[in-house]
Amino acid sequence: MKKHNFSAGPCILPQEVIKKSAEAVLNFNNSNLSLIEISHRSKDFVAVMDNACALALEHLNLQNKGYKALFLQGGASTQFLMAAYNLLEKKAAYLNTGTWSSKALKEAKLFGEVIEVASSKDKNFNYIPKNFNIPSDIDYFHCTSNNTIFGTQINSFPEVNAPLVCDMSSDIFSRELDFSKFDLIYAGAQKNMGPAGTTLVVVKEEILGKVSRNIPSMLDYKIHINSESMFNTPSVFAVYVSMLTLDWLKNLGGISAIEKINNKKADTIYTEIDRNPLFKGFAQKEDRSKMNATFTLVEGANQELFDGLWKAAGISGINGHRSVGGYRASMYNALPLESVQVLVEVMKEFERKS
Amino acid sequence: MKKHNFSAGPCILPQEVIKKSAEAVLNFNNSNLSLIEISHRSKDFVAVMDNACALALEHLNLQNKGYKALFLQGGASTQFLMAAYNLLEKKAAYLNTGTWSSKALKEAKLFGEVIEVASSKDKNFNYIPKNFNIPSDIDYFHCTSNNTIFGTQINSFPEVNAPLVCDMSSDIFSRELDFSKFDLIYAGAQKNMGPAGTTLVVVKEEILGKVSRNIPSMLDYKIHINSESMFNTPSVFAVYVSMLTLDWLKNLGGISAIEKINNKKADTIYTEIDRNPLFKGFAQKEDRSKMNATFTLVEGANQELFDGLWKAAGISGINGHRSVGGYRASMYNALPLESVQVLVEVMKEFERKS
Ligand SMILES: Cc1ncc(COP(=O)(O)O)c(C=O)c1O
Ligand SMILES: Cc1ncc(COP(=O)(O)O)c(C=O)c1O
Ligand SMILES: [Mg+2]
Ligand SMILES: [Mg+2]
Ligand SMILES: [Mg+2]
Ligand SMILES: [Mg+2]
Repeated sequence: MKKHNFSAGPCILPQEVIKKSAEAVLNFNNSNLSLIEISHRSKDFVAVMDNACALALEHLNLQNKGYKALFLQGGASTQFLMAAYNLLEKKAAYLNTGTWSSKALKEAKLFGEVIEVASSKDKNFNYIPKNFNIPSDIDYFHCTSNNTIFGTQINSFPEVNAPLVCDMSSDIFSRELDFSKFDLIYAGAQKNMGPAGTTLVVVKEEILGKVSRNIPSMLDYKIHINSESMFNTPSVFAVYVSMLTLDWLKNLGGISAIEKINNKKADTIYTEIDRNPLFKGFAQKEDRSKMNATFTLVEGANQELFDGLWKAAGISGINGHRSVGGYRASMYNALPLESVQVLVEVMKEFERKS
Repeated sequence: MKKHNFSAGPCILPQEVIKKSAEAVLNFNNSNLSLIEISHRSKDFVAVMDNACALALEHLNLQNKGYKALFLQGGASTQFLMAAYNLLEKKAAYLNTGTWSSKALKEAKLFGEVIEVASSKDKNFNYIPKNFNIPSDIDYFHCTSNNTIFGTQINSFPEVNAPLVCDMSSDIFSRELDFSKFDLIYAGAQKNMGPAGTTLVVVKEEILGKVSRNIPSMLDYKIHINSESMFNTPSVFAVYVSMLTLDWLKNLGGISAIEKINNKKADTIYTEIDRNPLFKGFAQKEDRSKMNATFTLVEGANQELFDGLWKAAGISGINGHRSVGGYRASMYNALPLESVQVLVEVMKEFERKS
């Protein structure tokens, strides 16, 4: 039976990417060797890494603007501390919009003073704070573009007189933005880019080298830049699959093309959540995420019936995170509109049968 | 044409493991979902992680002895700094047997005083120093069991009155040792265990929690232990393939069985290196590695002829590291004896044709 995979991450990837990945595990570039048994310094893999980095910069429209793309290990969680290790001399400002922002903020506190400029914790992170003040004497400002767990997304980024650092783990490559406003962007691959095991870092070189502390080699962006993501053995398979996914996106027409589809998917689900009397949305309407739609059943609705219906329809991965409860439909780039339509049909059927 | 893959890492993996990995990328556990598009917190993947950790401890005979196994991101290079971050309060002692030991030592210096108890740098690391003194007032002693680049291997580990930390990246699971003598063992997966992208850490819990510094979450062994390697998204594919490889080793009879084969492979190549007047070994005989045989051509030998012959025989990955030159035949667990025999045949043919 066809699956409709709404997993929050690791998550659905394009079928053609999955097929090509499996082929490369058996026989990479017709070498009669597996992708996973060759040297990362072989000509063929160095080309993969170079291509992945180039594609990332191309999609973000950041070529020849002083940025470098890196594929590192450790997940976005390692970036929480690396960002601070490399940039925080005295004081940094953080916007707290959810679990991931809170964790980033916590790690930064080990390295200097951290100002929480605003937080939506008062309402279990169901909105994006606006109109907050950012101190002017900071080393950088940090925010999370999309809050995977709570289903909110920043639409308008603040103007800051300091480096702008953004965790884009769950919405990178999903919508057009002026990425040149950002100085450090990071994203675990396992949403819109590839499998778990590698993390994209895009950094404007000029912001580096300004802290006085000694940075361990593996945590030093400059060292990874100088060795072109090959300071040590990279996560070969995850980088390869990311390259394939970035290539798939390019063939599809890039971010502007996928954004149209993502808008359609988000419209489709939110329209039904609002229309259907058995469901209510979790996030404030104006801050709703186009990647993760969070919603709950209204009181008294028959949860067992709904759960039975979506499971029977081949839907998986829509249970909400324990911090929110209810449901979360994650609609990353590779999720077809058809899957959202199937979910909406199930929601309508649930209404009819209730 | 059949390939004989002597790559130093990432390196050859068992054919059945490669086949099963490719299948799981297409359809994992008959779920109609790919291994790389499901949640790392799904029941099926949690079972993979648990099984991988259990198999690692079982192979090392370390179950129920106060040890925990972890699969982390970042490579062995991240362990260079994590070991120090978690264990180095005042002073640590390092044995310097090559490039990797030197790098480990360098990272540790950021965290405290580091004593180099001995070094074989004077002879380009072609031997293992013996009879050195280890100070008694140290937080731990660090060594590298097998020197991948130089082709030396420690046969007898020193008795130490402090935690014994060992980088076993390139010979873990290859030979029987009393692993309970070690307090912290780490190894990048990409030699005897799996693909690049995950790192095995085996740590005796009682050595942790003794330093006064604050440790960032992602660098804190205790945090990873408490969340059973799932503090953040692990390198799903690399952990899965590692589990398959550990399972393959178990079916084969475990470390004691593979050690016999590894001994035979090492005997086969070193016997020919010594017999053949056109080759000489790089490492001192008593310290020769059973994983990486390093050797050079004698002066005046026809390198082009030899290179042509081994390439024609389907051999790959035997060019030596630039620090040594010549050749390096890496013979990890998954390399069949047959491949070594083919190489030896080529060496004999080279002698006949020279
Ligand atoms: C926005 C965001 N940031 C950070 C993370 C943590 O990523 P990782 O598990 O790769 O450390 C996640 C994971 O879902 C996330 O959604
Ligand atoms: C003995 C040893 N230690 C450490 C490393 C570094 O491992 P990684 O590239 O995973 O950081 C290597 C890599 O070959 C190695 O052979
Ligand atoms: Mg969140
Ligand atoms: Mg409604
Ligand atoms: Mg070495
Ligand atoms: Mg000889």
